[in-house]
Amino acid sequence: MSKSALVMFSGGQDSTTCLAVALSRHEHVEAVVFDYAQRHRIELSQAQKLADLAGIQLTLVDLTVLSQLTPNALTRSDIPITTDASGLPSTFVPGRNLVFLSFAGIVARQKGIHTIYGGMCDTDFSGYPDCRDAFVKSMNQTLNLAMDEEFEIVTPLMNLTKAQTVQLMSELGRIEWYADTHTCYEGRRPACGVCPACELRIKGFREAGIRDPLGYEIEVGWG
Amino acid sequence: MSKSALVMFSGGQDSTTCLAVALSRHEHVEAVVFDYAQRHRIELSQAQKLADLAGIQLTLVDLTVLSQLTPNALTRSDIPITTDASGLPSTFVPGRNLVFLSFAGIVARQKGIHTIYGGMCDTDFSGYPDCRDAFVKSMNQTLNLAMDEEFEIVTPLMNLTKAQTVQLMSELGRIEWYADTHTCYEGRRPACGVCPACELRIKGFREAGIRDPLGYEIEVGWG
Repeated sequence: MSKSALVMFSGGQDSTTCLAVALSRHEHVEAVVFDYAQRHRIELSQAQKLADLAGIQLTLVDLTVLSQLTPNALTRSDIPITTDASGLPSTFVPGRNLVFLSFAGIVARQKGIHTIYGGMCDTDFSGYPDCRDAFVKSMNQTLNLAMDEEFEIVTPLMNLTKAQTVQLMSELGRIEWYADTHTCYEGRRPACGVCPACELRIKGFREAGIRDPLGYEIEVGWG
Repeated sequence: MSKSALVMFSGGQDSTTCLAVALSRHEHVEAVVFDYAQRHRIELSQAQKLADLAGIQLTLVDLTVLSQLTPNALTRSDIPITTDASGLPSTFVPGRNLVFLSFAGIVARQKGIHTIYGGMCDTDFSGYPDCRDAFVKSMNQTLNLAMDEEFEIVTPLMNLTKAQTVQLMSELGRIEWYADTHTCYEGRRPACGVCPACELRIKGFREAGIRDPLGYEIEVGWG
């Protein structure tokens, strides 16, 4: 196990779980967060809050250029979230993880870190091709060839359901961190409780049988 | 052969040759140029001049963030060009082509183009790992997996010497375009004629037995 790790961080539930996993395995952990002109700026401030809570250094990389290249619901607030003809949600920024992992690799190399954690997950059925394991494995090889280094991209959530992710966080003793993660597509703090993202989150906690420390605007029973 | 192609363009000799190759093969050609806060802004204005000359559309992508991540001679004018311990010139931006190809893929997808030309070359011994064929092939696969598309990255110069590249441009009937390409590391227009980049360029023309349409500050015989 390498001494140091860099976590691709978004202030969301998955990457915060990755952060907890990395901290349980490595002596020195840092994180990188990408400003891609996301619809909800709250994600970036929650990411900083969580990094402070975890006592780690957070590097912000300005990728707002992405919003100029891929107009869509995540990056332009005037487009509603829908599903396109191919079933991909309009929040899809094609190639986003390709860009994120490329920059994570560059940042990691500058810091002498060779282990990179990402919250990519094959099981959430979002349809993003750059969340699949085959992509991550290919990206790992490409990253190594690009820089003549031996990186390892670690994706602890790849085969977990949302419920299993919640369970993992509980086992790591960090469930309270979820109070500061941001999920809601509507950008409401703590959360609207009815948008598709909140719905998925609530379902995960229900299935895990664990109470979400995040408050909701609607009443949510934890079964 | 696909109808359209996107050329990764820098206003240099190699990518201008790629542009000429692409124009000889495809009905519709566009180019993308990256602003990575390169030491010499003249590269970007020469790129626009050459695009106008070729009658193609040029998309500028702002990747100045790279200069914040990798301080070195290409991006900070206060660092002299030297060779580091591993033999890589200090002009090396690790992972640069990884980032460029990722963004070229995103731009190409937005434009419905699936053929991407790059001037990467294995034979110039610069030591850049992300100029090698193994990297490009791996990147091609990663790009396809990232976006669930079938891109083809074409590198017509991969196995050519500088002299063969000059020869190719001559055969394509575009040798005069070289008058507007920028090569000089010192940022001088047309060229100082003595820096390592000029030296390499002059050597290529000499070996090809072709006169460089670019003027030099020193006297250069074409043998």
